[in-house]
Amino acid sequence: MFTCKMLKLSANHIKNSCGRLNLPAYLHNTGPCSLTAVPKPRAQEYDGPSMKTECPGPKSKELMKRYEKSNKNIKHVQFVVDLASSLGNYVVDVDGNRMLDIFMQISSLPLGYNHPAILDAMQDPANLVTIANRPALGVNLPEGYPEIIEDILIPIAPKGLENVQTMMCGSCANENAMKQVFLWYKNNKRGGAPVTKEEMDSCMVNEAPGSPQFTFMSFNGSFHGRTIGCLSLTHSKMIHKLDMPAMDWPVAPFPSLKYPLDMHLAENRAEEDRCLAEVQRLIDEYAAKGRDVAGLIVEPIQAEGGDNHATPYFFQGLRNITTQNGMGMVVDEVQTGGGCTGTIFASDQWGLDNPPDLLTFSKKLTVAGYFYKTEFSPDQTIPQAVNATDIKGYRVFNTWMGDPSKMILLGAILNTIKEENLLENVKETGKILNDGLVQLQEAYPHIFSKARGHGTFLAIDCTDANTATQISTLMKTQGVNVGLCGAKSLRFRPALTFKPFHADIVLDAFDKVAKKL
Amino acid sequence: MFTCKMLKLSANHIKNSCGRLNLPAYLHNTGPCSLTAVPKPRAQEYDGPSMKTECPGPKSKELMKRYEKSNKNIKHVQFVVDLASSLGNYVVDVDGNRMLDIFMQISSLPLGYNHPAILDAMQDPANLVTIANRPALGVNLPEGYPEIIEDILIPIAPKGLENVQTMMCGSCANENAMKQVFLWYKNNKRGGAPVTKEEMDSCMVNEAPGSPQFTFMSFNGSFHGRTIGCLSLTHSKMIHKLDMPAMDWPVAPFPSLKYPLDMHLAENRAEEDRCLAEVQRLIDEYAAKGRDVAGLIVEPIQAEGGDNHATPYFFQGLRNITTQNGMGMVVDEVQTGGGCTGTIFASDQWGLDNPPDLLTFSKKLTVAGYFYKTEFSPDQTIPQAVNATDIKGYRVFNTWMGDPSKMILLGAILNTIKEENLLENVKETGKILNDGLVQLQEAYPHIFSKARGHGTFLAIDCTDANTATQISTLMKTQGVNVGLCGAKSLRFRPALTFKPFHADIVLDAFDKVAKKL
Repeated sequence: MFTCKMLKLSANHIKNSCGRLNLPAYLHNTGPCSLTAVPKPRAQEYDGPSMKTECPGPKSKELMKRYEKSNKNIKHVQFVVDLASSLGNYVVDVDGNRMLDIFMQISSLPLGYNHPAILDAMQDPANLVTIANRPALGVNLPEGYPEIIEDILIPIAPKGLENVQTMMCGSCANENAMKQVFLWYKNNKRGGAPVTKEEMDSCMVNEAPGSPQFTFMSFNGSFHGRTIGCLSLTHSKMIHKLDMPAMDWPVAPFPSLKYPLDMHLAENRAEEDRCLAEVQRLIDEYAAKGRDVAGLIVEPIQAEGGDNHATPYFFQGLRNITTQNGMGMVVDEVQTGGGCTGTIFASDQWGLDNPPDLLTFSKKLTVAGYFYKTEFSPDQTIPQAVNATDIKGYRVFNTWMGDPSKMILLGAILNTIKEENLLENVKETGKILNDGLVQLQEAYPHIFSKARGHGTFLAIDCTDANTATQISTLMKTQGVNVGLCGAKSLRFRPALTFKPFHADIVLDAFDKVAKKL
Repeated sequence: MFTCKMLKLSANHIKNSCGRLNLPAYLHNTGPCSLTAVPKPRAQEYDGPSMKTECPGPKSKELMKRYEKSNKNIKHVQFVVDLASSLGNYVVDVDGNRMLDIFMQISSLPLGYNHPAILDAMQDPANLVTIANRPALGVNLPEGYPEIIEDILIPIAPKGLENVQTMMCGSCANENAMKQVFLWYKNNKRGGAPVTKEEMDSCMVNEAPGSPQFTFMSFNGSFHGRTIGCLSLTHSKMIHKLDMPAMDWPVAPFPSLKYPLDMHLAENRAEEDRCLAEVQRLIDEYAAKGRDVAGLIVEPIQAEGGDNHATPYFFQGLRNITTQNGMGMVVDEVQTGGGCTGTIFASDQWGLDNPPDLLTFSKKLTVAGYFYKTEFSPDQTIPQAVNATDIKGYRVFNTWMGDPSKMILLGAILNTIKEENLLENVKETGKILNDGLVQLQEAYPHIFSKARGHGTFLAIDCTDANTATQISTLMKTQGVNVGLCGAKSLRFRPALTFKPFHADIVLDAFDKVAKKL
């Protein structure tokens, strides 16, 4: 077991612990702080951050200016990356600044940069045909795809969700998961009655009854994507939504819990009960308006919204309510999926008897899509009495329906997770990082609060939004690239290969930054 | 110039012309029917179709059944492809059936299967880092991306649209193009007034005024994608829309023209005038309801809807109406773009003085996204008086915002189009194929009608839906994979490398099939 001094971290310890980082390059996990559970030598990596200029530096600024000539939508670009020089947990920018990257392309690269397993997979001549010929999976299935799905995705399927549909991105996954719920809901409501001509005609011009007035429930603080349907389910930041038309769909309160969760059991339980009661009240209110709530979507941890947690009790409550009301339940694991909470999916930790009906994924899994129960199959819900030429599928469909070239990446990622024992690493490194954050907020209570999370999927709150932004900027001067979320939170989304000695660097940088404030 | 006997095609000629196809393999474009404009030897290819079993054959059926264990949404799968054996214009299935593919993965593979330029690009070590590390383009721009955009996408930008935003797929391109129109429209309407607190608060729960009641116009018969926003713009087939909630947005009539277009000038003009008048009437009707029409979206040729054409006069009319009413105009070239009409974009042929405001693309361009005018930049429309931390972009944004690995493919595709003179090939082969279809409908007027199209983006109508399905099935027995669209049309969507001798095979197969009916 890993037992270095990080477990007794204090502000001073953080600083002192830096000495341990001066290991020879390429030998990190055989050094004194490595996990004995990971005996295999791993990828070469830099031996620490190294800052040459401010970030963004002059070369970044020049390239951003150049890019703006052909795309005016770039105000959110933070710096320009030299991908070829980036390695493992370190991102290198075009000014030669080398930063420990705990934002990792918005929580998406699971093995960091240029991991040998990924490079090998992409260079393997056996994969060339798949990379070079993107098929329309919905009409011309490629020979190897059923086996790829069986070998790669089905082994990580949440219990009870025996099917998987691949898609191109998280928004498309959520849009189509929602559609499968609408189809299932209408099919149940129809109860075997044939589709009417009125339904068939009215849907063509977006009118009821063919386009039903069904609604889909989401939560305050949620983020489910930016397409118009997903954006109607998103309630995290004003700037995402302002001036965009949206569906009139119910928005339920997400529990606002006190941290640490286990220190506020009674209050948190009461808050979750309040929210569950409101969920039921909204369902009744919308049903009374003739606007049935067909389903709901929820994140295990509201990520963009500020790393807001709820307990398994709340999700069990949602499962009970949706079942009782004949609604579908979608869990959005686009950001929480892929191992960063210590399990492949965060909801694996809920221990529900009856699992959610659909679970969406993207980002760290590289492939996007959703798992679903057989009863939610679109082909189970083909209405009767529709013209025979129309009923051969095509209810949930698009040109590509996924990208097999990304399945190659996912295969390499899942192999590496297993071979390098990365879920264990996430749990152990996460504990060390979280303990360090707790000590940090004890050392700087005027700046930091609410350290929280599972695995390395962690966050800490700052005094206010400006402080959070300021700290994130100052962290770059210390060679750490950290993301923001919610109103005033810093979020930790490192690669699964993020190790205890990387946590040292991060905590040390926080200590230095906090001292300056 | 190509002057083989195809130009004087008759039912008998078609049959006889088959002899010309027995060229040595790999030498097709140096044979007697090749275009002199394409002197360079090109990729090896098979010397004709070869059917071993029915399609789908037993191996396809077995794999489809196997796939269904892990995904019930597969009723639309037609057959299982052996991508490694597929070559050029020929798709090979797992039963060893070799078909000339004029559907080409739903109109998406521009150079056919395993084109050497694509294989070379994907094997080039210089591209490995880009293929292996998918970045979050919106925050961490990779070093080479501005140059890639300048070198690859900007040279094909429609006149007047100086910016381009990449996305992941056609639906996401349309969703985000629409969002940029909503932002632009609201910004104009706001006229410099600051954003109100009421707007900021109400948008978070999907309510007006923050989530305005703006609408977006689309046309009868249109297809713009399947996400909830795009599906609200789609009106091609009932099965796409039934049971899905939709936005209450105006649906205008698309001209129902008579073919050949140049034989029905007066009637067609009257029909287009009628539709244009209805567009204006709907704008007024919705405005009177307080539901401003912020923009409209239109395809140059309604592809999924049945290859419905309109003339440049109609699109000029839409441009005039949108300008006069202060609306944005989006042209959806997801299916028409990429060279298949003889120009990179079909709308390049309209010759408008004032181009459309945004143009979306995907499929054959492999990269998805949209070109847009600078005044439609989301960063031009950042409202005043919003908290400073909120206004740094992020109004049109998502995790990946495109996929640079697909830009490598597009670079190879555009180079090949130039080197192999493929736009000329499309025009010349398209003329031959279209002439052949006209002769076919003259020979079999009880079966075929309305041959139409630009370049190789062609279609022909069949007597009814069942006949179209039957012909498409019979064409497979002749070794030709052709797609359906609309109610009773067959659509031709070959690769840009589809040559006159390939057209021979297709026309010969049609003749054989027609004889059997």
